[in-house]
Amino acid sequence: MSYDLIIIGAGPAGITSAIYSARQKLKVLIISKSFGGQMAQKAVEIENYPGFEKVTGFDLILKMENQVKDIEILREKVVKVEKKDNFFIVSTEEGKKVEARVVIVATGAEPRRLNVSGEAGYLGKGVSYCSTCDGPLFKGKDIAVIGGGDAGFETAIFMKKYANKIYILEYGDKVKASLENQEKADGIEVITGAELKEIKGKDFVDKIIFEKDKNKNELDVQGVFIQAGYIPETSFLGDLVDLNEKKEIIVNFENYETKTSGLFAVGDVNCGKVKQIVVACGQGATAVIYGYKYI
Amino acid sequence: MSYDLIIIGAGPAGITSAIYSARQKLKVLIISKSFGGQMAQKAVEIENYPGFEKVTGFDLILKMENQVKDIEILREKVVKVEKKDNFFIVSTEEGKKVEARVVIVATGAEPRRLNVSGEAGYLGKGVSYCSTCDGPLFKGKDIAVIGGGDAGFETAIFMKKYANKIYILEYGDKVKASLENQEKADGIEVITGAELKEIKGKDFVDKIIFEKDKNKNELDVQGVFIQAGYIPETSFLGDLVDLNEKKEIIVNFENYETKTSGLFAVGDVNCGKVKQIVVACGQGATAVIYGYKYI
Repeated sequence: MSYDLIIIGAGPAGITSAIYSARQKLKVLIISKSFGGQMAQKAVEIENYPGFEKVTGFDLILKMENQVKDIEILREKVVKVEKKDNFFIVSTEEGKKVEARVVIVATGAEPRRLNVSGEAGYLGKGVSYCSTCDGPLFKGKDIAVIGGGDAGFETAIFMKKYANKIYILEYGDKVKASLENQEKADGIEVITGAELKEIKGKDFVDKIIFEKDKNKNELDVQGVFIQAGYIPETSFLGDLVDLNEKKEIIVNFENYETKTSGLFAVGDVNCGKVKQIVVACGQGATAVIYGYKYI
Repeated sequence: MSYDLIIIGAGPAGITSAIYSARQKLKVLIISKSFGGQMAQKAVEIENYPGFEKVTGFDLILKMENQVKDIEILREKVVKVEKKDNFFIVSTEEGKKVEARVVIVATGAEPRRLNVSGEAGYLGKGVSYCSTCDGPLFKGKDIAVIGGGDAGFETAIFMKKYANKIYILEYGDKVKASLENQEKADGIEVITGAELKEIKGKDFVDKIIFEKDKNKNELDVQGVFIQAGYIPETSFLGDLVDLNEKKEIIVNFENYETKTSGLFAVGDVNCGKVKQIVVACGQGATAVIYGYKYI
């Protein structure tokens, strides 16, 4: 099957691209296993998306999804994108091949694993990357959040609803969260200069070991929420794109085009420093308007 | 009075900057005579802003305004911005002087009016300045696009999806659009040397009068898209910024900073080609996150 435009990914950036391409009357296909990206998993209500004083990520993505309900969606996983003459050929894990003149990559990023002992083994048994998903399971428990950026603080603040004692462990000397989030974190114990070394337990997590000032320390916790950043999802692109040191796709900031003509990357998957919903949406709209010129 | 950040203008870009600066706990002042920019004046519902299937510009701006209700607003007109050491001094027509470390200019642009009879009266009743906004309303109708530059041709080409008969009226002897756009304009009737004189109708537009070779001519059309350029609002900035040939502020597309450190320009006032609400919002958020580093 041949399309004008294929959008890979269905978070805020991808959905906005789809909204705009529908208005340009393009023949467009969205390929994504799931809808909503990180937004659907956000721990706290969104208060900085223009137009909504407060909205859950889940509700906002439902509203956006509703705006693209007439667009064809293939719920499969992309494993390869190739360029042949003036067309891109997109292959899915399920064996489908589709082609288009323009491809917009909006695959976002996956939570970064720390690869410490116990992390994989206790996944779903005390280890989580998503407090909105798993928060209620930790009612009355003591938990540690690993990571002192905004995501870590928002996770900890959210978990005040459920957990008993909450720690935030930050590897660096200072937390990186916004002052607003730091102020909301009253009652939460923040430990800086702390490197997680091991997650221990029996059937479930009951302890973490971390190093601080070259000493080993223990905390008795029944939950560990890891918020150590994100890894962009770009493996299927091969050498069609260049990546920066964070493995983000390098784009031209004017139009979000990659080094390959007709191939765009928008939202958290690209090298833009501001990882925010409305910024991802703006990029999604911009790429379509530029991509339209190829078609 | 001294602030961390002054935002000049209160359309979608400026308001989003304000939403983000409040979250960073910055001491911020918005200076704007009115709220909403072009968005508040939109005659038809917005269908391409992510999160709302349909919303009037008026309603959307009210919702955004509600998100900045705790922010100080000075309802005056800026007449001058100067830089002194590491501070900007902003002066208003009403004689106030305020200062800040960072200034975000979000004053937008106004579509250039032709000031012909009927233009103001039929706004939203057949007269439009934005085909992506209003195009679908003209399905099956005959329309005239006023302006034979690229914007006019792109409007006409876009409208082929919806409209029946399409005219382009160009004031000069030759159209100024690129050859590429001219080639795409098959089926569109281009009339050069044509000066629009009047837009007529009853409840809605039904006719335009134009002069060519000193003769008056009529066209029966139900829509008039005026594409006579935009006028960015930059007069108060002096030589703190460079302008392009469209009088838009030249910015670095990564962070929307102008040639002057700490002075940013977001939304329709800058040289970005995609003039859309969600794009302006994304720029407003991005500039604040970068601007925060100065403070």
